[in-house]
Amino acid sequence: MFIRDAWYIAAWRNEIGRTPQARKYCGEPVVLFRREDGAAVALEDRCCHRHLPLSKGRLVGDVLQCGYHGLEFDATGACVRVPGQTRVPPGAQVKSYPVVERDGLVWIWIGDPARADPAAIPDYHWIEDPAWSAVGGSIPVNAHYMLWIDNLMDLTHTTYVHATTLGADAICRAPIKTERSDKWIRITRWILNDEPGIYWRSALGKTGPCDRWQIMDYFLPSHTLLDVGVAPAGSGAPGGDRSHGVEARVCISLTPIDETTSCYHWSFARNFRRGDAAADQKTQDSIGRAYIEDRDVIEAQQRSLDRAPPGFKMIDLNADAGQLAVRRLYEAALARQTAAGARGPIAAE
Amino acid sequence: MFIRDAWYIAAWRNEIGRTPQARKYCGEPVVLFRREDGAAVALEDRCCHRHLPLSKGRLVGDVLQCGYHGLEFDATGACVRVPGQTRVPPGAQVKSYPVVERDGLVWIWIGDPARADPAAIPDYHWIEDPAWSAVGGSIPVNAHYMLWIDNLMDLTHTTYVHATTLGADAICRAPIKTERSDKWIRITRWILNDEPGIYWRSALGKTGPCDRWQIMDYFLPSHTLLDVGVAPAGSGAPGGDRSHGVEARVCISLTPIDETTSCYHWSFARNFRRGDAAADQKTQDSIGRAYIEDRDVIEAQQRSLDRAPPGFKMIDLNADAGQLAVRRLYEAALARQTAAGARGPIAAE
Amino acid sequence: MFIRDAWYIAAWRNEIGRTPQARKYCGEPVVLFRREDGAAVALEDRCCHRHLPLSKGRLVGDVLQCGYHGLEFDATGACVRVPGQTRVPPGAQVKSYPVVERDGLVWIWIGDPARADPAAIPDYHWIEDPAWSAVGGSIPVNAHYMLWIDNLMDLTHTTYVHATTLGADAICRAPIKTERSDKWIRITRWILNDEPGIYWRSALGKTGPCDRWQIMDYFLPSHTLLDVGVAPAGSGAPGGDRSHGVEARVCISLTPIDETTSCYHWSFARNFRRGDAAADQKTQDSIGRAYIEDRDVIEAQQRSLDRAPPGFKMIDLNADAGQLAVRRLYEAALARQTAAGARGPIAAE
Repeated sequence: MFIRDAWYIAAWRNEIGRTPQARKYCGEPVVLFRREDGAAVALEDRCCHRHLPLSKGRLVGDVLQCGYHGLEFDATGACVRVPGQTRVPPGAQVKSYPVVERDGLVWIWIGDPARADPAAIPDYHWIEDPAWSAVGGSIPVNAHYMLWIDNLMDLTHTTYVHATTLGADAICRAPIKTERSDKWIRITRWILNDEPGIYWRSALGKTGPCDRWQIMDYFLPSHTLLDVGVAPAGSGAPGGDRSHGVEARVCISLTPIDETTSCYHWSFARNFRRGDAAADQKTQDSIGRAYIEDRDVIEAQQRSLDRAPPGFKMIDLNADAGQLAVRRLYEAALARQTAAGARGPIAAE
Repeated sequence: MFIRDAWYIAAWRNEIGRTPQARKYCGEPVVLFRREDGAAVALEDRCCHRHLPLSKGRLVGDVLQCGYHGLEFDATGACVRVPGQTRVPPGAQVKSYPVVERDGLVWIWIGDPARADPAAIPDYHWIEDPAWSAVGGSIPVNAHYMLWIDNLMDLTHTTYVHATTLGADAICRAPIKTERSDKWIRITRWILNDEPGIYWRSALGKTGPCDRWQIMDYFLPSHTLLDVGVAPAGSGAPGGDRSHGVEARVCISLTPIDETTSCYHWSFARNFRRGDAAADQKTQDSIGRAYIEDRDVIEAQQRSLDRAPPGFKMIDLNADAGQLAVRRLYEAALARQTAAGARGPIAAE
Repeated sequence: MFIRDAWYIAAWRNEIGRTPQARKYCGEPVVLFRREDGAAVALEDRCCHRHLPLSKGRLVGDVLQCGYHGLEFDATGACVRVPGQTRVPPGAQVKSYPVVERDGLVWIWIGDPARADPAAIPDYHWIEDPAWSAVGGSIPVNAHYMLWIDNLMDLTHTTYVHATTLGADAICRAPIKTERSDKWIRITRWILNDEPGIYWRSALGKTGPCDRWQIMDYFLPSHTLLDVGVAPAGSGAPGGDRSHGVEARVCISLTPIDETTSCYHWSFARNFRRGDAAADQKTQDSIGRAYIEDRDVIEAQQRSLDRAPPGFKMIDLNADAGQLAVRRLYEAALARQTAAGARGPIAAE
């Protein structure tokens, strides 16, 4: 099951060009390419004639020509030419998906195109905001996408999963506050007058006790924004002057490929050492390595869940409050979709 | 589902010898070997005692000895010796399949041996006819065998699949004529006064406009014969003098291995540059490469069909007339088999 | 289906240490490690919180700390600490499996711990008895564990499977005697005044006709003990003086990993050329190679059985008497387990 009426990250802007590319989102095969005017196009990756993936074909101007019998499709998915006959048969078309380019990302809408409102795309403007310096990447993961959302909603895992990269033992002693609406969850944790982890100590460039904050926002269905930073003790708490500290906005979004495979898209925008290539590299390395640690844990967790006996339960902890709030919101959205009669994924395997 | 009362190509003659070989046809495991007198034998590849494949054993004269406990089977599949006891238990035998060697090929009959009539084997005499020079090969394909039959029944794919190897754009502009009986389909296409593709232009060895012909015969269940050639314009059409041109007979037959795997057997016999090793090599390379292009398309098509949503339809084109006629003939034969109570494949996976 | 109230070999003693190791027995994921006092521990390899395998964590003294959120478990499987909260939630524990170390082996009990009686562990004392010299090993096999038990119960396979390593044609001419109780089967074969195979001729170090014996004991569910040897003709039969000959005790036990995967544990203890490293190596090589031959046959047999058509029968031979007696004992034990309402494997795949 996927939430279909939603925007998902399809690709980074520079991944798409004039060579058709095969992708899969929510179990549906999609071919991505750009028209001659540069506009990104996403079509169903399956010719309506004999089902060859259209990504096996080639672009002829703005039409995509099937590599088997030469049927040609325009950017709306309509078949506009059939070799050897003058009339295009009725019904000869493939699905076209709404796409929007924003903040260096190409977003795709899987559900009913009539409901595709670009205003619903998460605000990830920090990725290209000149006041911030961002690095990022994408990590394929052999797990259901919500397992990584669970991971993000409880950052106490940092102590155990990222002990040697980001770890700081104080995180799990700090309480969290959970706020919620019908579209988002906010989990706030303040760690006052304590020692930050390796990465943030180095970013701050000062010794002495610190205040730290982690304000994690979740948006339906699988988007997050983390407001994270560190400042000298006394200035990091609510009402403090953040200008004494350093901070980042971490834009993370999971795209479901199918029920057991996902893609983790992350961008880490910092407001310190901006435009500094060495700082870019250090952030890419440190943060990127930490996310690989997460991926390894999540894939092992998925394999364990796959073989769990029927009826097996999970024990919940205090620190799971945010995660449980997110899961309730997500399950409610799925239930609304089912109640509305939205069809399920048409090609989930 | 397979059509069981049928001859299929089991192997090329020189593939079978005194070392037992494991194969699979229509989902059934088969061991192939030759007796001391050279006769080819095909037995069920499964000992009736503890199911070890007999292909793991060894030949002792004309009997095949199981590699586990030494039971011995003759060419009829009867167990003729059990080590350690004097009496062979009742029912100790494996299935024996009728085989016929002809035209350089070993044919196997999967269904009821009582109905195995060698007269029903397709006429592929061109493969060894001294008036022709043939090359050929076998290509395993991870797809249902009828997908390649579909491919052969609409040669307009040549323009798109074989653009750089055989391609000629005129094919898809030429109309086809379809003739049918209850056992075969014939699809005829004449392309008059036009430019042939690279291979045929070179074969003809003359410049100037040409007539081309493609007369494709399909025989139940998965055999084809293509009469193809090119001649100077005016001499290639019906009633023309073919002796001014060059031609070939292409014998192609698909053997089902199981529901998702097949083997494509092809032989290309030409009546020009006979006995010329360089021409043999050129034909092997050009035609062989084109068939690999087909295999890639067909395997991609199979994977796409595998994930097609339930109820998904295909759009048909004018050029599909021959293919649709073939599919009707094939489906009718399957339906007759079902109605006759013929058991399905006993070991389809 | 597995017989759950049973001891199985978990590992060789030296395979377990202070690094947690992931294993699987009867379809259940198990983590093995040693406490600081050296005692071996076997816990369910799945954290009760979010299911990460505990083998991904680390030992902190005698507790195993989960690698995701830091929950800590003691050797009884009880969660004794949850980071970030003072109270351990009710129900926070994982299953603990009884283990016993004996004869160089670590044995695990999969079923109800209350019924785990160490007295039921097979007597394999020869492995570490100074009067004998033992070599051994473990062989993973992609087959149901009872197929290898079948193999052991009919040693006539030696002639065909081990023709070049151990083979002796006389085995299959010698009759067997089968004795039985409700817990074991004994199959005895005497081969009198005959030629032994390569390995035993060399072990005896004398020429001349020999008596040989193979006394194979099977114990529920998948343990065997072979009393095997060779002596000059006239001294090997019952009542003869074995001291003129050479003999071995072969301790073989199959551990089910899951329904299609097993581990073959073997130890070969001889009473000749004791403490001789060259003889150790020769035995390891000869016997080890023969077992690899068995594994290849058994895996081929399993693949053949996997594709056998529904309702396919096996033919039984006289030499199968022992094997059939074993299977009856085994099936009866499974039936008793089912009748007693014992749950099946909780994580069979």
